[in-house]
Amino acid sequence: MSATKVPHLMTLADLSAKQIRNLLNHSHQIKAKTLPFLKPRGTTDPPVLEGRPTRYLVGKTVALLFSKRSTRTRLAAETAAHSLGGQAIFLGRDDIQLGVNESVRDSARVIGGMTQGIFARVGDHSEIEELAKYSPVPVINALSSYWHPTQVLADLLTLHEHAHEFESAEKVASAKKNSLPELRPLTIAYVGDPANVLHDMLVTYPRLGHQMRIASPPQYRAPDAVWDRVKELECDKSIMWSDDPREAVHGADVVITDTWISMGQEAQKEQRLKDFQGYQVTEALCREGGANPNWKFMHCLPRKEHEVDDEVFYGPRSLVFPEADNRMWTIMSLFETIYGRGTLDASEKVGSRQRQPFRETTQPQ
Amino acid sequence: MSATKVPHLMTLADLSAKQIRNLLNHSHQIKAKTLPFLKPRGTTDPPVLEGRPTRYLVGKTVALLFSKRSTRTRLAAETAAHSLGGQAIFLGRDDIQLGVNESVRDSARVIGGMTQGIFARVGDHSEIEELAKYSPVPVINALSSYWHPTQVLADLLTLHEHAHEFESAEKVASAKKNSLPELRPLTIAYVGDPANVLHDMLVTYPRLGHQMRIASPPQYRAPDAVWDRVKELECDKSIMWSDDPREAVHGADVVITDTWISMGQEAQKEQRLKDFQGYQVTEALCREGGANPNWKFMHCLPRKEHEVDDEVFYGPRSLVFPEADNRMWTIMSLFETIYGRGTLDASEKVGSRQRQPFRETTQPQ
Amino acid sequence: MSATKVPHLMTLADLSAKQIRNLLNHSHQIKAKTLPFLKPRGTTDPPVLEGRPTRYLVGKTVALLFSKRSTRTRLAAETAAHSLGGQAIFLGRDDIQLGVNESVRDSARVIGGMTQGIFARVGDHSEIEELAKYSPVPVINALSSYWHPTQVLADLLTLHEHAHEFESAEKVASAKKNSLPELRPLTIAYVGDPANVLHDMLVTYPRLGHQMRIASPPQYRAPDAVWDRVKELECDKSIMWSDDPREAVHGADVVITDTWISMGQEAQKEQRLKDFQGYQVTEALCREGGANPNWKFMHCLPRKEHEVDDEVFYGPRSLVFPEADNRMWTIMSLFETIYGRGTLDASEKVGSRQRQPFRETTQPQ
Repeated sequence: MSATKVPHLMTLADLSAKQIRNLLNHSHQIKAKTLPFLKPRGTTDPPVLEGRPTRYLVGKTVALLFSKRSTRTRLAAETAAHSLGGQAIFLGRDDIQLGVNESVRDSARVIGGMTQGIFARVGDHSEIEELAKYSPVPVINALSSYWHPTQVLADLLTLHEHAHEFESAEKVASAKKNSLPELRPLTIAYVGDPANVLHDMLVTYPRLGHQMRIASPPQYRAPDAVWDRVKELECDKSIMWSDDPREAVHGADVVITDTWISMGQEAQKEQRLKDFQGYQVTEALCREGGANPNWKFMHCLPRKEHEVDDEVFYGPRSLVFPEADNRMWTIMSLFETIYGRGTLDASEKVGSRQRQPFRETTQPQ
Repeated sequence: MSATKVPHLMTLADLSAKQIRNLLNHSHQIKAKTLPFLKPRGTTDPPVLEGRPTRYLVGKTVALLFSKRSTRTRLAAETAAHSLGGQAIFLGRDDIQLGVNESVRDSARVIGGMTQGIFARVGDHSEIEELAKYSPVPVINALSSYWHPTQVLADLLTLHEHAHEFESAEKVASAKKNSLPELRPLTIAYVGDPANVLHDMLVTYPRLGHQMRIASPPQYRAPDAVWDRVKELECDKSIMWSDDPREAVHGADVVITDTWISMGQEAQKEQRLKDFQGYQVTEALCREGGANPNWKFMHCLPRKEHEVDDEVFYGPRSLVFPEADNRMWTIMSLFETIYGRGTLDASEKVGSRQRQPFRETTQPQ
Repeated sequence: MSATKVPHLMTLADLSAKQIRNLLNHSHQIKAKTLPFLKPRGTTDPPVLEGRPTRYLVGKTVALLFSKRSTRTRLAAETAAHSLGGQAIFLGRDDIQLGVNESVRDSARVIGGMTQGIFARVGDHSEIEELAKYSPVPVINALSSYWHPTQVLADLLTLHEHAHEFESAEKVASAKKNSLPELRPLTIAYVGDPANVLHDMLVTYPRLGHQMRIASPPQYRAPDAVWDRVKELECDKSIMWSDDPREAVHGADVVITDTWISMGQEAQKEQRLKDFQGYQVTEALCREGGANPNWKFMHCLPRKEHEVDDEVFYGPRSLVFPEADNRMWTIMSLFETIYGRGTLDASEKVGSRQRQPFRETTQPQ
């Protein structure tokens, strides 16, 4: 097997800040173009022909290799592929066990020979690196022990779409129509278990101009392999890490948390509930800590009440459901760019001939 | 979350008699338009371009939330969605367990944020009501402990298609071409375990002008929640309920039964086999009971021999396989109407610009 | 149920040599037409509209009934169906258990009433014969205890595509462009466990002009039911069967092996590893046995090292990955011919109006 360049995506640390911005803009455009087609159409509405935002994935197949159950990521990937005219094939742990009946190397080559992309949710991060090493088609990390790049893209799109919440009225009024709103530098607090989603924030938010403030119990910190990437990208300068949730939310525009007990950690449940005592996100915590009075809340879901109370989670501060919706739109953008066009850079001008809304005639020929 | 009106379908009791008729007519039209496209085409046949009966579901996704295994309902839903240009994503109990890792409320909102419809086969009926309460997209009941609306639509379409079996020759000759044949008032007997399929018959057949005669052992009766809907719709006046199968089939044009041991009732198998002794549908039973000599047989499948013998099941009276086929055509009609157009009423005139057969040119532009 | 002629495919023994050649040619043409559409398209590339090689499967559904796990066959079938504009629905042993809750007869009729083809991977061969007996739509054998026709079609396509490896330079230079290269009569050695894949070779290769040389331990031989078909087709005259791997590879142009421990034989693992001692395919074995110095290697995967060493498997002699890729292209050809057109003969001239690359206009008509 000769080595060819394949645009794999293991973590957002693999992308430049500009490439991340391009992907966000592209997601925004795809969403704006596709949403009208997905609405129910009363029979008396003017005819809206079906459409796809672009045609790069039409007829193509994405293999979803998921060694762990995942409703959100799976649904996002399957709907994204279909909306683009392609298909996703879900292969769970009952369908394929990587490395058990066949080497990862052979599986990667075979699956990559029949599909145009691999979207993989593995256990240990080394598994997806092994897949990427031998796959002839791009591998995108759908979640590994270290990284969760697609979640952070969805978070970023959600923040940009709510940029007006963090701005003065004049700024909002002067914003350009039809383009993704720009985001002022934010203070983003993360309170809870520092895991794969946080890791991708650490290598991303600082490069986009945001400050991070993190609180976790002292025995919960990022592994060296992650921290090396953080320092390599000089993101560490914009990160404050404390044991005190109140200190973390000080001045925060956004407060984020995640599950305390990830899949596979069920046995540690009791210990973890003890360790994270006092880390529940509540109005009181943020008031006492001195968050921006207009702070917003995000969570990648599924959520348990010990992490955040109902008042915050179902209240007006919560961006959690738009955030979940954006899993689909950002994955759609990634599939189209990486699997459909074979590049990590979504920067090309939209509006070229191939990008026109897909229309089909209803007139007899 | 603000309350918006979403056209959920929990039972046929939710629909007016007119809306049910419209759905049946619509199913008939969709079937007539789509069937020719699904036939194999020899290379020497005149070219028939692929087609979809309508375009309302193109590019859209339906989530199939099935907490119980189901071959028929699943296949019908997946083929229906595909034939309409959409896709169905099957999520079984290994993929998602409603209410276990996440509240039903959150799952409903998240799944509804990425799909255009939810088709759910749950256990207890309260689960699907909970889903409908929080889903931003329409929820259709694919089977619950109380109701099974899609089965009864398939049964009705089958009866209408076989209307000529119940009519005099003159009547048949004078029927309108190309429209769903009308059905004379029938006497419909149900012999066996009164469960969800029967419940939807009870709230439906009387409103369409048919009489129902039911036989079940005395300890097997419809729950109050169901019977309340029956009385509310004044259907009880056209229902005779007895312990004697012979009495039930008296004058019957149609005899229907269902499984005696539903999923989850395996432990009661021995008791149930004893309780339903004498309820097997046979030629002898119907002859002795005095059924219409031309009686027809229906069963929603899967079938066991204790419920109906081979002579009836595989004989000329049996409508069971056309009935199974019609699961697909009626679900297609529901998906198109409810998920594609966002209404419970399929009454709009077909033939408008958007409804023309889907054609694609083979000429370069 | 009246008996109609349905073009089922249980083994390649069901097809004439000419029909097999037609299917290979058809696979080659479909592959050539489809490959350009599946490549990633940089935004600056000239616009290539999406395309399907033919339109016979558009909007149609294939049921995959797999009682055993299978990555390769499943992926090949799902991607093939999608590339042709249809869909495949995967039903594994958790989704349907043939003959358990419902008779195979009823399941075949119901599934065949909602789909346009059944692609079934069963255990005992009698199961798929039972399916075919009652299915109204064509059943293709995706693997049974006796036969594996789709694997041998993929092997044959791979050999034809590598015909130049077995020819003199002049011959290669004079080959017709754009058509499937012809193959000179080869000596094909099979070393290892004689199972379903080998069985389909036995009834096929001799009819296409090739010699077979087989080595297996004396207690491992083809069952009578298979050998009867071999003799019926007069293939036995071109088959040499020995206990000695060295004798089998003598003069071999191609050396093939398969797993020693098939699914369900895990308990016999230790015994089988002992029985097949000395059967590993290596450079030394083929040198000592006197294979054609330019011998090629094939394996249907998944592979274990005891069957073939890394030097051969990952070396330049190995055709295993193109062979795996060709699972998709040959299955695509079968689906289009059998499910889409309703025939076992793919001989019709390609290029007719319906076969033109599928193009969709972006201009209003």
